[in-house]
Amino acid sequence: MKQRPLKHSYKGFFITFEGPEGSGKSTQVRLLAGYLESRGRETLVTREPGGTPLAEQLRTLVKNFDGPEKMHASTELLLMEAARAQHVREKIRPALAAGKVVLCDRFSDSTTAYQGGARGIELPAIEFLNSFAVAECVPDLTILLDLPPEAGFARTSVRAETRGEHDRFEEEELEFHLRVREAFLAIARREPERVRTVGANRAPEIIHEEIRTIVDQLV
Amino acid sequence: MKQRPLKHSYKGFFITFEGPEGSGKSTQVRLLAGYLESRGRETLVTREPGGTPLAEQLRTLVKNFDGPEKMHASTELLLMEAARAQHVREKIRPALAAGKVVLCDRFSDSTTAYQGGARGIELPAIEFLNSFAVAECVPDLTILLDLPPEAGFARTSVRAETRGEHDRFEEEELEFHLRVREAFLAIARREPERVRTVGANRAPEIIHEEIRTIVDQLV
Repeated sequence: MKQRPLKHSYKGFFITFEGPEGSGKSTQVRLLAGYLESRGRETLVTREPGGTPLAEQLRTLVKNFDGPEKMHASTELLLMEAARAQHVREKIRPALAAGKVVLCDRFSDSTTAYQGGARGIELPAIEFLNSFAVAECVPDLTILLDLPPEAGFARTSVRAETRGEHDRFEEEELEFHLRVREAFLAIARREPERVRTVGANRAPEIIHEEIRTIVDQLV
Repeated sequence: MKQRPLKHSYKGFFITFEGPEGSGKSTQVRLLAGYLESRGRETLVTREPGGTPLAEQLRTLVKNFDGPEKMHASTELLLMEAARAQHVREKIRPALAAGKVVLCDRFSDSTTAYQGGARGIELPAIEFLNSFAVAECVPDLTILLDLPPEAGFARTSVRAETRGEHDRFEEEELEFHLRVREAFLAIARREPERVRTVGANRAPEIIHEEIRTIVDQLV
């Protein structure tokens, strides 16, 4: 399979936020979107899995699937990539072509970390599938909000109690979430230009300030 | 990506039926299953997309999806492969391991023909995804029921009128179905050992007799 182009050439800028459960990604996406819009940049805030009605339907299926059969890891991976293929073509690509800054809560690195690092599907298969789904829309910048799983767990539990349920990923053991974190950190080591690691065990305003500094240099 | 093993080593035997809409696949699956069981062979009859509750849910989504957004070809492909990954691991593999003859109405060649040949996704990507979803469960025998699209169209229309609707594939133009047929025939030319082409524009009993002759030499 030939290598696809690794960078888009649209006018827009594509920023993804990655990290474990409870690392504060959605808060930081919101704060950064507010900041960019206050500076006159048109932004699109979106998330994965999801981002279009069809992809959100797949999100619900993947996150809350509850038997009778077991959802196999390969099935989970392919559903994530199906949602991504749709999201990229239907929403992200048009927004980048229109010159917007796209802020996405989770993207292909989450697949590498969760379905690869944590569920154990081999990396070359993950990379092929990510590349197929993402096409040319590789992120220009990825903010990795890093947090020990124990800290993220505590935050997620509070949220889940409010909501009354955990999803299939939140329900996994600590060991699973340790593998997720290690996989995220490995991506950051492999691609230091694209992926910037930001400590997430601090006050949201402090984290936002650090992210703003990074973004100001690029956007 | 390393090449996966191309053949299973289970006690069972895996037969897939391929061909355009209206080629009589399900009738032939039923007739062959009856024949094999009359000879004392335990059989499992199944179909794609589908075959498990989760995969059947994906079948409905792919075949009957109706906006507001357009389902992109890559999304359709990944959903087909997600359904297949689940079906293979949950149903086909255990049946082959238990020594059954598995008869499947459509399988990976349909993806090559519909999402590849007809929708235009490049063959190496299709082959990679088929291989990932199928794993070692490559069919031992594939019966290609060949039929000019015009003839299949006529039969499908009668069925759809009874059912009151066409699905997303039946609704495609004649040109689409000509590409599907050509892609099926190309697979048969590439893999003459596995794929046997059987003319489908004949009486079901005559076709069944020809299929029985092929199967008797192998099972």
